[in-house]
Amino acid sequence: MYHHVKKLMYTVKVGDPDPRFGNMLLEQFGGANGELAAAMQYSVQGLNTDDPGLKDMLMDIGTEELSHLEVIGTLARMHLKPMKKDRDAAEADPLIAICGGGGVNLYNSMGNAWTADYLKITGQPEVDLRSNIAAEARAKIVYERLIDFCDDPGSKDALQFLMTREITHMKVFMTALDSLGKKPLEIGKLKPTEGLVDQYFNDSTGEGDGAKDMTGPWNEGGDWERVDNPAFEPGKMKVDGD
Amino acid sequence: MYHHVKKLMYTVKVGDPDPRFGNMLLEQFGGANGELAAAMQYSVQGLNTDDPGLKDMLMDIGTEELSHLEVIGTLARMHLKPMKKDRDAAEADPLIAICGGGGVNLYNSMGNAWTADYLKITGQPEVDLRSNIAAEARAKIVYERLIDFCDDPGSKDALQFLMTREITHMKVFMTALDSLGKKPLEIGKLKPTEGLVDQYFNDSTGEGDGAKDMTGPWNEGGDWERVDNPAFEPGKMKVDGD
Amino acid sequence: MYHHVKKLMYTVKVGDPDPRFGNMLLEQFGGANGELAAAMQYSVQGLNTDDPGLKDMLMDIGTEELSHLEVIGTLARMHLKPMKKDRDAAEADPLIAICGGGGVNLYNSMGNAWTADYLKITGQPEVDLRSNIAAEARAKIVYERLIDFCDDPGSKDALQFLMTREITHMKVFMTALDSLGKKPLEIGKLKPTEGLVDQYFNDSTGEGDGAKDMTGPWNEGGDWERVDNPAFEPGKMKVDGD
Amino acid sequence: MYHHVKKLMYTVKVGDPDPRFGNMLLEQFGGANGELAAAMQYSVQGLNTDDPGLKDMLMDIGTEELSHLEVIGTLARMHLKPMKKDRDAAEADPLIAICGGGGVNLYNSMGNAWTADYLKITGQPEVDLRSNIAAEARAKIVYERLIDFCDDPGSKDALQFLMTREITHMKVFMTALDSLGKKPLEIGKLKPTEGLVDQYFNDSTGEGDGAKDMTGPWNEGGDWERVDNPAFEPGKMKVDGD
Amino acid sequence: MYHHVKKLMYTVKVGDPDPRFGNMLLEQFGGANGELAAAMQYSVQGLNTDDPGLKDMLMDIGTEELSHLEVIGTLARMHLKPMKKDRDAAEADPLIAICGGGGVNLYNSMGNAWTADYLKITGQPEVDLRSNIAAEARAKIVYERLIDFCDDPGSKDALQFLMTREITHMKVFMTALDSLGKKPLEIGKLKPTEGLVDQYFNDSTGEGDGAKDMTGPWNEGGDWERVDNPAFEPGKMKVDGD
Amino acid sequence: MYHHVKKLMYTVKVGDPDPRFGNMLLEQFGGANGELAAAMQYSVQGLNTDDPGLKDMLMDIGTEELSHLEVIGTLARMHLKPMKKDRDAAEADPLIAICGGGGVNLYNSMGNAWTADYLKITGQPEVDLRSNIAAEARAKIVYERLIDFCDDPGSKDALQFLMTREITHMKVFMTALDSLGKKPLEIGKLKPTEGLVDQYFNDSTGEGDGAKDMTGPWNEGGDWERVDNPAFEPGKMKVDGD
Repeated sequence: MYHHVKKLMYTVKVGDPDPRFGNMLLEQFGGANGELAAAMQYSVQGLNTDDPGLKDMLMDIGTEELSHLEVIGTLARMHLKPMKKDRDAAEADPLIAICGGGGVNLYNSMGNAWTADYLKITGQPEVDLRSNIAAEARAKIVYERLIDFCDDPGSKDALQFLMTREITHMKVFMTALDSLGKKPLEIGKLKPTEGLVDQYFNDSTGEGDGAKDMTGPWNEGGDWERVDNPAFEPGKMKVDGD
Repeated sequence: MYHHVKKLMYTVKVGDPDPRFGNMLLEQFGGANGELAAAMQYSVQGLNTDDPGLKDMLMDIGTEELSHLEVIGTLARMHLKPMKKDRDAAEADPLIAICGGGGVNLYNSMGNAWTADYLKITGQPEVDLRSNIAAEARAKIVYERLIDFCDDPGSKDALQFLMTREITHMKVFMTALDSLGKKPLEIGKLKPTEGLVDQYFNDSTGEGDGAKDMTGPWNEGGDWERVDNPAFEPGKMKVDGD
Repeated sequence: MYHHVKKLMYTVKVGDPDPRFGNMLLEQFGGANGELAAAMQYSVQGLNTDDPGLKDMLMDIGTEELSHLEVIGTLARMHLKPMKKDRDAAEADPLIAICGGGGVNLYNSMGNAWTADYLKITGQPEVDLRSNIAAEARAKIVYERLIDFCDDPGSKDALQFLMTREITHMKVFMTALDSLGKKPLEIGKLKPTEGLVDQYFNDSTGEGDGAKDMTGPWNEGGDWERVDNPAFEPGKMKVDGD
Repeated sequence: MYHHVKKLMYTVKVGDPDPRFGNMLLEQFGGANGELAAAMQYSVQGLNTDDPGLKDMLMDIGTEELSHLEVIGTLARMHLKPMKKDRDAAEADPLIAICGGGGVNLYNSMGNAWTADYLKITGQPEVDLRSNIAAEARAKIVYERLIDFCDDPGSKDALQFLMTREITHMKVFMTALDSLGKKPLEIGKLKPTEGLVDQYFNDSTGEGDGAKDMTGPWNEGGDWERVDNPAFEPGKMKVDGD
Repeated sequence: MYHHVKKLMYTVKVGDPDPRFGNMLLEQFGGANGELAAAMQYSVQGLNTDDPGLKDMLMDIGTEELSHLEVIGTLARMHLKPMKKDRDAAEADPLIAICGGGGVNLYNSMGNAWTADYLKITGQPEVDLRSNIAAEARAKIVYERLIDFCDDPGSKDALQFLMTREITHMKVFMTALDSLGKKPLEIGKLKPTEGLVDQYFNDSTGEGDGAKDMTGPWNEGGDWERVDNPAFEPGKMKVDGD
Repeated sequence: MYHHVKKLMYTVKVGDPDPRFGNMLLEQFGGANGELAAAMQYSVQGLNTDDPGLKDMLMDIGTEELSHLEVIGTLARMHLKPMKKDRDAAEADPLIAICGGGGVNLYNSMGNAWTADYLKITGQPEVDLRSNIAAEARAKIVYERLIDFCDDPGSKDALQFLMTREITHMKVFMTALDSLGKKPLEIGKLKPTEGLVDQYFNDSTGEGDGAKDMTGPWNEGGDWERVDNPAFEPGKMKVDGD
C-alpha cells in the first residue's frame, strides 16, 4: 500500500524559467532512462520476487523513485509554465503547450510517450540487478549532462540531489548482486559450451582509413582464443564445443 | 514524497491458478484502462494543478491507484506463475513466460507495452475531470467483464473490491466537477458560435438494409435545428453563425 | 457506404503561411485529441452497436469528423507549404519537410504517428458516451489554445467553426447519455460493495511546504466517510463491505 | 465533405461465427495492410496534391476504402461477437473481449493498435503511386490468405469482393503512373551518378550449405557491371562516377 | 554469416558541422524510409525465400544497405557532434544531445524510435518486389530533398552516392519482377471477380470550390466502366460479378 | 563495409516443426532482448565511439550478432513454416501467418514490432558497457528458458550455441569495463554529494502479511546510514550533503 506526503523530497527553487531546458528535463520525467522507468522497473521486480530481502530493497528504491518523479516533474513544470501563454516558448514543445496547457506529461524531450518497452524485467535476480546497475549508470550520466546544460543554480542543486541518489542506488544494486554469491559469468542454470565460450570472433577487420585490428584484455591473454574472419574460416569455430 | 507499506490494500487469495485468466488480468495492470493508467493520469494532473483542493484529491486517488496496481499485479502474478515451467501455460503469453520468467510486466493481455498515449491530461480542470469520470467508467466495466470470465471465488472478491473503488472515484470526480460551478457545456473561455452550435448535421442517411434515419432528444426538440445532408446542401450550415 | 463531395465544410482562407503554427495544427489532424481520433472513435462505436438510434447518431458525428479532418488538414497544409523549399521553415518539422515534401501526414506536432491507442471504445453505451463527452471537451480546449496562439484571422475563423462543433457534439453525447435513463453512477450490471463505495481514502497527507489536507464536497458531507491514512490503519477500510 | 449512407457496399452474411477467424480478419480492419491504412494513405495524398486529376482519383479510392473498412469491420464483428460471453472465444483476443466487449477496434490480429507508421506518403506523385501499387498488392495477397483459411461461404464471398477491388485499384494506380509520362527510373529531378548507377555490388557470396552465387537479368546483361566483394576491393566501386 | 571491414563504402568529408542538418539526416539512419529499413526489409525477405536467385539478390542488396547505414550514420554523427557541448545545438534534438551524448541512435528527425512497422514483408515475390521498388523510390526522393537542404559540398557528395544506389536497386527490383513472368495485375493465385474488377467507383464528386469530376486513362477508355455515386446507386455495382 | 557469406554460423537442423515454439523463438529474432537489439546496440555504439579499441570490439560483436540473427531467424522460420497452410498452426501467430505468409518478421512472440526503444546507447563507455553486460545477461536467460521449453534436439543444439556466445560477449564487456580503469561507482565526471550518497532511504516498511523490514549488506554495514521513513522524517535526509 502506498501513502503520499505533500512535501517534495527536495524543495525545488527556480530563478528564471527556461522552457527549452524544461523540455530537456522531460527526459528524466517521461524518458527512457527517467524516474518513471526506474520506479516501475524496480517496483515490478519487487512485486514479482519471492525473496524477502530483495523485495524489500526493490520496494524501498522503487518508492524513492516515485518521489524523484515528483521532484523532476515539479522542476520541469516550473520551467515549462511560460508555454501556456508565450508562443515562442510553446514552440519548444507544442505537445506540452497545446495539449497539456503547459503542464508536464509522461513524454520525453521529443514528445515520445513513455512506454514500458523501456523496462528490463526478467525475474532472474542476477540478471535484473545487472539491468538495474546499468539503468542507474544511464540515469547518472543523463543528470550530469542536464547539469552541464543548465544555467540556473536552484535547478542545478535539485539535479545534483537526484544525480547523487542514482549513485547510491547503483551501490545498493552492486552490493546486492555480490550478496547472491554467484560467479561473475554465472547466469541461470545452464552451462555454456566449453571451448566455444572462450573464442573471440574477429568479425570486423581491415586497415582502411587508418583503422586497424585492435587487441586488448577483451580478446587476448587469459583463456581467450581469437578466431579471425570466421565467416571465411568457419571450421575454426568450435560450434559444438571442444 | 511517497511511502510504501508492505501490506496489500486487499489480501489476495487464489485457488487454482488459471494462466489464461491471469493473462486477461493484465488489462488492468498494464492495459489502456488499467491501474497504472489511472495512477499516472491523476498523479500527473495533481502535480500540474495549482488548486490545492483539486491537487489533494488527485493525489489521494492517484496514490490509491498505485495500491490497486499492487493488488491486481499480485493477483495476476499468482495466476501466471505456472507459465514459468509449464509449456502449455506459457503459450497463453510467451512474452511473460519467456522474457518475464512468469512474472508480470506492464503489458496488456496482448503483450502491448503500456504507453503514456493512454493518458488524457490537459491541465484544464473541467476537461480533466471529465476524462477521469470516463476513465473510471471504463475501468468499472472492464472489472465487470473480468468477473464475468472468472471462476475463482477469491479472485472475484478482489476484483469486486477494485471495481467498487472505481465507482467511488467516479463519484468523487463528478462531485468535484459540480463544485467548479461551470455550466454543462462551458469548457475554457472562448464561446462557441451561436446558431451553428445548435445545428445537428445529419451526415448519415439512407434506408438500405432496413436502416432508417433515427431521431431522439439528441437531434430534435429543445434548441436543435437539424440539417439534412449538409454535404449536398452546404448553404444550410450556419458556418459563420446566425 | 461513404461518399465524398469535393467541397470543404468550411472554406479555408490563410494570409501569410506560418509553418510553426501549421506544425501546431497537426495536433488536431493526427494528434491524440484530433479529428481522426474523433472520427474513428465514433464511427467504430457506431459500427459495433446494435441500437439503431445510437448507431445513426454515432455515424452522423463520426462522418462529420471526417469532414473536419479535411478542413484542419487543408488549413495545416497551407501553413506548412513553405517547408518544401525553405530550410528555416523545414526545421519546424523535418519529418513533414523531408519525408512528406511539406504535405501533412497523420502525425502530431512532435512527429508522433497517430495510433489507435488514443481511442476509447468499450461497447458499453453509458461508458462510451462518457468517453465521447470527455473527448469533445479535450478537443474544445485544444482548439481554444490554437486560437490563442494564432495571428491569422482566416485561420482563426476556421478554428472557431471547428471549436463550435465540438460543443455541439458534446451536447449531443450528453443528451444521449441522459436518454439512456441510467443513474449517474450506474455502469454495467454489477453493483459496487456497499459501505466500501462511500469511503474516501485520504492517501495523501501532510503539512509540508504549506500544503495541508483539503476537504470539499468530494470527500465530506453526503454519504462520504473519510478514512485517513489507510496504509497505516488498514482495518478502517471496509474492504469486504459493511 | 463526407456523407455516409446506411447501407454496406457488400451485404455480409455469416453462417457460424468463428472468433479465431474474426481475429484474423482484424488484419484488414486495423492492420498494416488493411482498409484504414489504404483509406488514409490515399485520402491524405489526395488532400496534399494540387493536381486535380490525381486528387479526384485519390479521393475516389480513399473514399471507397472507407466503405471497405465498414464491410470488413462488420464481417469481423459478426465473427467476434461470441467473445462477449464465451470464455473460450475470449481467449482468441482478450483485448477485444474484455476491453471491447466483443466489438471491433482498430487493432490487428495480435492486438497492435493501428499506427500511421504504416502509411507511405511523400507528396511526389511518381513515388506515392508506386507506394500505392505495392499497398494494393499486399492487400490482395492478405485477402487471398484469409480466403484460404476461411470455411464460411458467406465470408468468402465478401472477401472475394474486397480482394477484387484491390486489383481494380492496382490497375488505376498503374495507369495513373503511366500517365505521368516519366521514365521507369525517373524519380524526382536529380540525376543519379553515371557509371556507379549500373554497378551491381555482389555483397553476399560463398558456397557453404550448397549456396552459390546466382546470376539473373538483375545483375548481368544490359548495362550491368558486376563488382564482386566490394568490401575487399573497394577500388572497383565507381563511387564518384565514371 | 556477416563480416565487417573497417572502411566506409563512401569516405565522408564534412566542412562545418550543421547540427540541424545532422538531425534531418537521421531520417535516412533511423527513419521510415532509411537505410536500416531497407537493410532489414531485404535481408529478412532473403532469409524467408527458398528461391536461390532471389535470395542471393536480396542478401546482396540487404548487405549493401548495412554499409549505407554506416555511411549515413557517420555523416550524421559528424554533423551532430557539437550537440555534446553546445546548448544551442542541443536544442535541435535534445534526445540525441542528452541521452545520446551527441551520438546517433536509431531515431528519425523527430526522435521517433525506429520500428519494424516500417517494413513490408509478405513472402510473396511479386508483392515484396513491388514493396521494394516503392521503398527505393521513397528513399531516392528523401535523399534528393536532403541534398536540396544541404550547403556542405562533402555532405552533398556522400548523399549523391547514396541516392544513386537507390536507383540501382530500383532497377534490380524492377528487372527481377519482370523475370518472374507474371502479368501486371497477377498477384497470388486467386482470380478477381470479372466485371467488378473493371468498374471504377466515382465516390468523390461535386463542383464546389471550383472542383469538378476528372477523367483520365485511370477511369475511362479500355475496359473501364465508371459507376457514379455508388453509395446512392448501389445496384450498379457488380458486387458478385457479371 | 559489410560482407555476407551464404553460410550459417551454426547449421540448423529441425525435426518436427513446432509452430508455437517457433512463435516463442521470435523473442530472440525481433524481441526486446533479441539478436537485432544486440546487433544494433553494439554496432551503433561502435559507430559513435572514437576509441579505436572499443570501436573494433563493438564492431566485432555487433557483426557477430547479425550472424546470430540469421541463425535464429532460420530456426524460427523452420518451425513457423506450417503456418502458411495449416489453420491450427496459423492461430499461434496470425500476423506471421496471414501477413507474412509463414515467414519471419521483426516482431516478438506477441506480434509487437521491434523498436529502437529497446536500445540503450549513451556514448559514455563506462555506461554503455554496463548496458551491454546487462543485455547479454538477459539474452542468456531468455535462451535458457527457450531451451527449457524445447523438445527438439536439433533446435536445442542451436540454442545452446547462441546461449554460449552471450556468455562470451558478457566476458568481453566485463573485461573491457575493467580495462577502463574507473572505480566501481565512477560514472562520468561529476561527483555525487557526500553524506547523501551513503544514506539508504527505507521507504517501504510494515509488518503486514508477515512482511518485515529486511537488512543486508545493501543497507547496513560499511558506509551505509539508514534513514527510516524519510517521507515522515524528511529532516534526516542530507539533501544538500554533510
